[in-house]
Amino acid sequence: MTGATADVAAVSAANAELYAAIEAGDVDRLTAMWDLADDVVCVHPGWPAVRGRSRVLRSWAVIMANTAYIQFFATGVDVSVDGDVAIVTCEHGLLARSDESDMSFGETARVVASNVFRRRPDGWRLWSHHASPVLGADEEGTEAE
Amino acid sequence: MTGATADVAAVSAANAELYAAIEAGDVDRLTAMWDLADDVVCVHPGWPAVRGRSRVLRSWAVIMANTAYIQFFATGVDVSVDGDVAIVTCEHGLLARSDESDMSFGETARVVASNVFRRRPDGWRLWSHHASPVLGADEEGTEAE
Repeated sequence: MTGATADVAAVSAANAELYAAIEAGDVDRLTAMWDLADDVVCVHPGWPAVRGRSRVLRSWAVIMANTAYIQFFATGVDVSVDGDVAIVTCEHGLLARSDESDMSFGETARVVASNVFRRRPDGWRLWSHHASPVLGADEEGTEAE
Repeated sequence: MTGATADVAAVSAANAELYAAIEAGDVDRLTAMWDLADDVVCVHPGWPAVRGRSRVLRSWAVIMANTAYIQFFATGVDVSVDGDVAIVTCEHGLLARSDESDMSFGETARVVASNVFRRRPDGWRLWSHHASPVLGADEEGTEAE
């Protein structure tokens, strides 16, 4: 963690709200976390970059419409604040299901995300989100025994 | 592209130097592109986050020591500059070979990277690099017909 304590706490809270909004399937809450500027960019796991606010929000709406259940288990979060920009890197285990009628879960996927926030008058807002799959053996960033 | 023209040009040049250094297998040139602060972070494709300057540079040294040949084909680059921070998102086709004696190449991999730069007295330096594989069908970010 680098940055003033209050800033780190505020950025951590914004980052937590981002994942809570996704878990809740709440597009409005998720939309509220994104910066209003059009230079926002988003990379979903395995995807190319999606650029521009309307396209980014549309991509999330599609993903959330096709996700019946999603839950994140944070295994490592780091916050670096520098002035009015902050980078959060976080690793999660992820349980997701696309079909309400399917009560089984597959393997827990591991994802790592870099979330870049900008300080705005009403709080920290996402400038960039880049999430990707973590493959292979555990080496870093987890709380494995 | 967003930001003053001169800034966008300088950030684009820094980003190009990053990939040229990797292609050249030149650890010194690559090291020069990274910020001196210890809050730097790096995600290689399929990896969890590597945090801190010494660990980040060591990860690159290991990758470069195990790469006999690597070449990037840029298919999409976008630069967003906001004050003293810039985000470059870029997609590349990638040819790589770990063994000098193996003259064949497999499939060209597709990777997408988010590179966050900070403005320093001596130029734009990497704060964060997050690269990940692009899987499946082409939809965005490429110049496919």
